[in-house]
Amino acid sequence: MARGRRPGHQDTRESVLTAAREVFADKGYDGASVRAIAAAAGVDPSLIHHYFGTKEQLFLAAMQAPINPAELIPRILTGDREHMGERLVRTLLHVWDSPAGGAAAAMVRSAVTNDMMARMLREFVVKRLIRRVLADVVSDPAEAATRGTLVASQIAGLIMIRYLIRVEPLASAPPEEIVAMVAPTIQRYLVGDLTA
Amino acid sequence: MARGRRPGHQDTRESVLTAAREVFADKGYDGASVRAIAAAAGVDPSLIHHYFGTKEQLFLAAMQAPINPAELIPRILTGDREHMGERLVRTLLHVWDSPAGGAAAAMVRSAVTNDMMARMLREFVVKRLIRRVLADVVSDPAEAATRGTLVASQIAGLIMIRYLIRVEPLASAPPEEIVAMVAPTIQRYLVGDLTA
Repeated sequence: MARGRRPGHQDTRESVLTAAREVFADKGYDGASVRAIAAAAGVDPSLIHHYFGTKEQLFLAAMQAPINPAELIPRILTGDREHMGERLVRTLLHVWDSPAGGAAAAMVRSAVTNDMMARMLREFVVKRLIRRVLADVVSDPAEAATRGTLVASQIAGLIMIRYLIRVEPLASAPPEEIVAMVAPTIQRYLVGDLTA
Repeated sequence: MARGRRPGHQDTRESVLTAAREVFADKGYDGASVRAIAAAAGVDPSLIHHYFGTKEQLFLAAMQAPINPAELIPRILTGDREHMGERLVRTLLHVWDSPAGGAAAAMVRSAVTNDMMARMLREFVVKRLIRRVLADVVSDPAEAATRGTLVASQIAGLIMIRYLIRVEPLASAPPEEIVAMVAPTIQRYLVGDLTA
């Protein structure tokens, strides 16, 4: 690449992120390709890989995601299967009780009122993150999808009541109290008998 | 009251509802009194009772609530304690799968982004409705509050995933399948052992 002919690194980064937001909004997470984003930004796809890594990492950067799921998922999967629900709830509360929680709340708020953000949340968080956890513990993919949405339902509601609407006493309860109360629900949704 | 000096019934109804929305927004559900709403509307409190009944009924009319909780709560409480979670989930899905669900979804959407609606939802739905169900089954009020918010968390999340973000397969699952999967969670939150 000829120096002086291209914008600076910072400008390139910004134009890729802008293009990414547009293409993700237009095509959804699944439908957007790094190639299409590169074309929209007028750069080579290899440049995107160089700056951002995978499509997932590009997506997280474009959404200004406060949390990197790649760091969190191993915390849930590492350890015995009997305490997976417990680790999931503990990790969730740890992130949301941290300063990153405020930015995460803003993302969820906009997903509830904005179709584009809802689609992103649906495709990315539910399909990718939760199913990635489930792929490790459930063999039947159809069952994994059902279990994934059940886990998502309890997590979404916990976030809504504790962090968004802030209803007491759940809003101020110590994390470990919530872990004890909610983990059995998550554990059953993950690996338990769903019809009992 | 001198005829011809007052606006017509329809106008009076409307001015009471407008005043009610303003006073509820300003003071919250608990802080708003029928007397204050009457004063804001320039009518006698007895007129409000005549047109709307209780403060709760006035609130539901002002919020254009698509659902009358007074009709639903007995459906949950009537019957054996062992199936209360089941009846709660079944009643919830019945309402949200009906045409009233669309209007209810609009209320929840605005509660997530609007502080005033969030406060209403918190005070009214959680404190009044859910605790009214719990008052019947739990003796300790402190415990009832915790159980109430746990029930609210699973209900709010189920509504969010099935009706607002519409994640499959939960979005299209037959109601009785969801009852079988989610009722045990609600049953435990209502009357089960929370630390096991």
